[in-house]
Amino acid sequence: MNVLKVAATSNPKLVAGAIAASIRSDDSKVEIQAIGAGAVNQVAKSIAITNGYLAPTGIFINTTIAFDEVNIDGDTRTSIKFIVEKK
Amino acid sequence: MNVLKVAATSNPKLVAGAIAASIRSDDSKVEIQAIGAGAVNQVAKSIAITNGYLAPTGIFINTTIAFDEVNIDGDTRTSIKFIVEKK
Repeated sequence: MNVLKVAATSNPKLVAGAIAASIRSDDSKVEIQAIGAGAVNQVAKSIAITNGYLAPTGIFINTTIAFDEVNIDGDTRTSIKFIVEKK
Repeated sequence: MNVLKVAATSNPKLVAGAIAASIRSDDSKVEIQAIGAGAVNQVAKSIAITNGYLAPTGIFINTTIAFDEVNIDGDTRTSIKFIVEKK
């Protein structure tokens, strides 16, 4: 499964394009990682925008939200993992 | 459908309890509103925690994430709406 890492500075429209491309691919699902409130907010906006990219072609999406742990420079950080897949 | 309003100061465990109660109810779905990155982050954490409350009883959840507009003291603000329902 494709994994996208989103930061507080990520552009939600570009992230939405990447999510939509993954959903349209054979994989038809994608995982998005975010650490911190700013990044989580960008992911939420990106997923909201993705609906508008996919819905006109009859594709609707569901998201599963869960905690994850990510290793950054030897430190373990708690991240939020969004798994987006076709409804 | 039950609507929960979550703020940056909301306790994710308490919000998760309210989400789980709504999912277990006859309604079996709930809408959660958040304005701003801090609030959106608390909602994401709350939904992640809700998985742990419901999964042991064989209930799994999906989330739909979308934009919404909320009127606060006469001002229109863009909010993020999370609709959580049984898988």
